[in-house]
Amino acid sequence: MSDLKSDRVSVRRLRERGAYDSKSIYAILDEGKVCHVGFNVDDQPYVIPMAYARVDNKLILHGSVLSRLMNKLAGGVNVCVTVTLVDGMVLARSAFHHSMNYRSVVVLGKAIPIIKASEKAQALNALVDHLIPGRSKASRPGSKQELKATHVMALEISEASAKVRSGDPKDDKEDMQTDYWAGIIPMATAYGAPRPAADLKMSIPLPDFSQLL
Amino acid sequence: MSDLKSDRVSVRRLRERGAYDSKSIYAILDEGKVCHVGFNVDDQPYVIPMAYARVDNKLILHGSVLSRLMNKLAGGVNVCVTVTLVDGMVLARSAFHHSMNYRSVVVLGKAIPIIKASEKAQALNALVDHLIPGRSKASRPGSKQELKATHVMALEISEASAKVRSGDPKDDKEDMQTDYWAGIIPMATAYGAPRPAADLKMSIPLPDFSQLL
Repeated sequence: MSDLKSDRVSVRRLRERGAYDSKSIYAILDEGKVCHVGFNVDDQPYVIPMAYARVDNKLILHGSVLSRLMNKLAGGVNVCVTVTLVDGMVLARSAFHHSMNYRSVVVLGKAIPIIKASEKAQALNALVDHLIPGRSKASRPGSKQELKATHVMALEISEASAKVRSGDPKDDKEDMQTDYWAGIIPMATAYGAPRPAADLKMSIPLPDFSQLL
Repeated sequence: MSDLKSDRVSVRRLRERGAYDSKSIYAILDEGKVCHVGFNVDDQPYVIPMAYARVDNKLILHGSVLSRLMNKLAGGVNVCVTVTLVDGMVLARSAFHHSMNYRSVVVLGKAIPIIKASEKAQALNALVDHLIPGRSKASRPGSKQELKATHVMALEISEASAKVRSGDPKDDKEDMQTDYWAGIIPMATAYGAPRPAADLKMSIPLPDFSQLL
């Protein structure tokens, strides 16, 4: 377990919500499926949703070699990758103390292109398996051309923080005897029943997705 | 319905996924609950999750006057606000064509502080009501001090795009006769049963959250 704190990633407001150990940070990264990647073009920030995976102390990102984002990243610009899990609405007696329960991670750094074909293939397998456990072995592996058409980037998780809010609303003393309802409405990502593609061969049975669902 | 396209927000890759009309963009913004706000400090992008609401052609953001993000925004920096709804995993026969179904919106611009107390209060009510329909009238309204402690910002939705992927995987012809399963695993945000705060007065009944749940 390593400490990933820096001044730049320190939680300034509500410091008790911050965590900087790799264990807390990895747990959030491993649960999320989509990250939001921030990068600059001419002092204009852009924030783009992407799939990702964590492999050891690295975040794997990928995209077409034709993508602007991927070419920016490959050029070694500063990025911020944020993963947010929303756990619920927090309803306080006062409008002011309404909040959300969430777990989020911010990772700062520069992504480095993975060049070697075997390492690219391995990283892409990790990405598919992060989204759907075991899926890399249950689909047709990437070809040489497909690997060539894909930028794969690794962002070292060396400067990062987690921010977590959990539990009940925190109302002011004066409001505790009011008649407003207070509590939590839980939220989570739900997976529906897998739906075969319209053109799937009839003879192919539904795989076991129990690790995901 | 207005056209919010600019060169900066144009979808470059897979152009058929882009939309620039306010109707498509508002529909996504109105369904989301959390946005990711991108801003720069010393050429380092930061991406922070926040609650938001849409009011007419504006996005409302808020936060403590002590928050760095809020003070940055109030200073008139360029921001990017991204809202992403994840609709499902797309499992193709080939690892390469795996994808996700999603609807996302990117809004670029500068946020402008709302100063007038009555307008601030109105914007904050919209924010609470966006998260939980009707809630602003079912909680104790903000006090003068609470309003003073809160920065409320409006970002005009004048330069924005939506990007949408939906439907089945698109495999290569050569893969159509393989025996790999292909299809969709739907994903959505699920709300759990509301849970009263541990210190809630026993006499207070559970409100009707049917508009949310």
